[in-house]
Amino acid sequence: MKRTKDRFSVTYSIKGSAEDAREKARDICVEQTVEFPLALITDKYILGEVPGRIEAFTSVTKSLHQARISYPVLAAGSEVTQFLNVLFGNTSLKPGIRVERIEPSHALFRMYAGPRFGIDGIREAAGVRERPLLATAIKPMGLDAGRLADLAYGLASAGIDVIKDDHGLADQEYASFAQRARLCSRAVAKANAKTGGRTIYAPNVTADGDEVVRRAREAKRFGAGALVVSPGLAGFHSIRAIREDRSICLPVFFHPALLGSFVSSRQSGISHYAIFGQIPRIFGADASIFPNFGGRFSFSRSDCARITEGARGSMGTMKPVFPMPGGGINLSSIRRLVRFYGNDVILLVGGGLFEYDADVAKGVAYFKSLIS
Amino acid sequence: MKRTKDRFSVTYSIKGSAEDAREKARDICVEQTVEFPLALITDKYILGEVPGRIEAFTSVTKSLHQARISYPVLAAGSEVTQFLNVLFGNTSLKPGIRVERIEPSHALFRMYAGPRFGIDGIREAAGVRERPLLATAIKPMGLDAGRLADLAYGLASAGIDVIKDDHGLADQEYASFAQRARLCSRAVAKANAKTGGRTIYAPNVTADGDEVVRRAREAKRFGAGALVVSPGLAGFHSIRAIREDRSICLPVFFHPALLGSFVSSRQSGISHYAIFGQIPRIFGADASIFPNFGGRFSFSRSDCARITEGARGSMGTMKPVFPMPGGGINLSSIRRLVRFYGNDVILLVGGGLFEYDADVAKGVAYFKSLIS
Repeated sequence: MKRTKDRFSVTYSIKGSAEDAREKARDICVEQTVEFPLALITDKYILGEVPGRIEAFTSVTKSLHQARISYPVLAAGSEVTQFLNVLFGNTSLKPGIRVERIEPSHALFRMYAGPRFGIDGIREAAGVRERPLLATAIKPMGLDAGRLADLAYGLASAGIDVIKDDHGLADQEYASFAQRARLCSRAVAKANAKTGGRTIYAPNVTADGDEVVRRAREAKRFGAGALVVSPGLAGFHSIRAIREDRSICLPVFFHPALLGSFVSSRQSGISHYAIFGQIPRIFGADASIFPNFGGRFSFSRSDCARITEGARGSMGTMKPVFPMPGGGINLSSIRRLVRFYGNDVILLVGGGLFEYDADVAKGVAYFKSLIS
Repeated sequence: MKRTKDRFSVTYSIKGSAEDAREKARDICVEQTVEFPLALITDKYILGEVPGRIEAFTSVTKSLHQARISYPVLAAGSEVTQFLNVLFGNTSLKPGIRVERIEPSHALFRMYAGPRFGIDGIREAAGVRERPLLATAIKPMGLDAGRLADLAYGLASAGIDVIKDDHGLADQEYASFAQRARLCSRAVAKANAKTGGRTIYAPNVTADGDEVVRRAREAKRFGAGALVVSPGLAGFHSIRAIREDRSICLPVFFHPALLGSFVSSRQSGISHYAIFGQIPRIFGADASIFPNFGGRFSFSRSDCARITEGARGSMGTMKPVFPMPGGGINLSSIRRLVRFYGNDVILLVGGGLFEYDADVAKGVAYFKSLIS
């Protein structure tokens, strides 16, 4: 049997002296693949093809280095779980090593086609050609489905582009998933019919195992226009499963819940660029929600710029993805944010929109005056 | 409709002055539930019952504090994904806040029954009453299923207690899951029949979505004695799904792949106690694999002691779970490790066993002489 020799690469930052970092890089090559003393491996194919290979090693400073390591695509198989395992499984448990970026290979691009919609697809669905999109979330948790639908109706009537479920709305006794997704989809459709608008409603389908896919299909039947998924909770395979299901065919908004720990140390974990930009995109997300700088979270301007680069920058054949900053954005900062992110952004304004005026229509109108 | 008022608690460490930490604790109460300005919430039930509540606040030092916050079990619903979301979803994105421990409530204990087997159940299956158990892994990745099965046969014939798949063995072209799990289960059964022993073979069933459960059922049919799952890759719901499936009924070995970033900062993330001890146990793992101190990973003695406490310590009605340290354990350190962990431990020796002697039977015999 002739096996592919295709290899993809991962660049790691490694702390320590150049000598230590080179040794750590060699350890990564073994740890992420054979996990076995190389001296005890007698099979020539395994020894030659399976372990990681250091393709490049560069020193950023005396105590910080970068190693680009290639892995056989066969090691990652065809599953998201095993791909992430090769990327950082055991090495995540070692300090001072951080995933900076991924360079997918030819075979990987065939396996993971990236976003189905991307920026252009979402613009087409929303009927918005050039300007930034405005999104908000329906909440708080505790409201029943009827009241959430009323809220969605008001927001859609005001002409907002995207209404997403708050990521904490799951399938609680307060409002079941099915009831909420049905009533809110219907409310937004009714408002769209009235205004001639194309507001997109995106229910949160994050759930255990394949229930994510079942909810996504149900949401599609109810008429939802997009979906919210938190892969930190449900696993990254959940995004891919939705992307690959032809009966769903809806844009996916990636939510970063529980993924903050990957970026809480600058020396370990996974870079903002990769975890909030590249990785959701590879598995098929169409927009990446993340905490904006200056809000109630701690991301810096540079963190947000790097995420945006991972989401929108060139990556083989994969469509660019909308950066979707949120978390404490006020309407007063919109113009500044558009200068920072450019037009290809979805601005997610939650509390800020409701605080602007008790009548959300005024907030939405004000937003539109700022960006058109 | 009368709703339960049951609340579970989470204790967070918070960096900063006492005043800052109290404010951050109040923010957590909102962020993890309603995620909405409290001043804008008019519904009395929501305002009174849904947000987190600070039940206790204590200062460890001037700049480190602990807040115990209770949440309504209704906010967490009945899904693992939403439980983790309430635990740490958005707050994971804020620096200087760390989950220390969980105090499950009455309702939560009903929902999550913990391990089905635990220490006693695994001891019964392995036929080992008091001494520590010895486990090893079959590898390296790249071997075909037949050669992995030969390896498993040799190890089982030598009388080792547990043989697990290396966590990097998934469903690759090198050896498909089905072929590997079938041949290795058969090889271990054959060795057991010959020796009268009860070696347990645990294939790795980590996979995308409900495929985890399908593989676990398949492994059961092949005669596997336990299962390995990496919930950092597959999601924690995968452990629960296996635990709740009556057709599977096999012990689950939790593997920590990709979860290292939760403990890479002492000030953020989730404590060793919770992420490697409590959390796998709550969802139904029977043994917790983690990197031993002094090996090629960086965990300290105290980290390992805390994990062991989370796994074996008292937690309501939940059975205690085997700590299963691994990652560079040599046979020369076994006696020291048994003094440290006590008898209720599964020692996972990979490369160390193969390095001791080319004939693994000698390594296994030496191990048994050390611990009986």
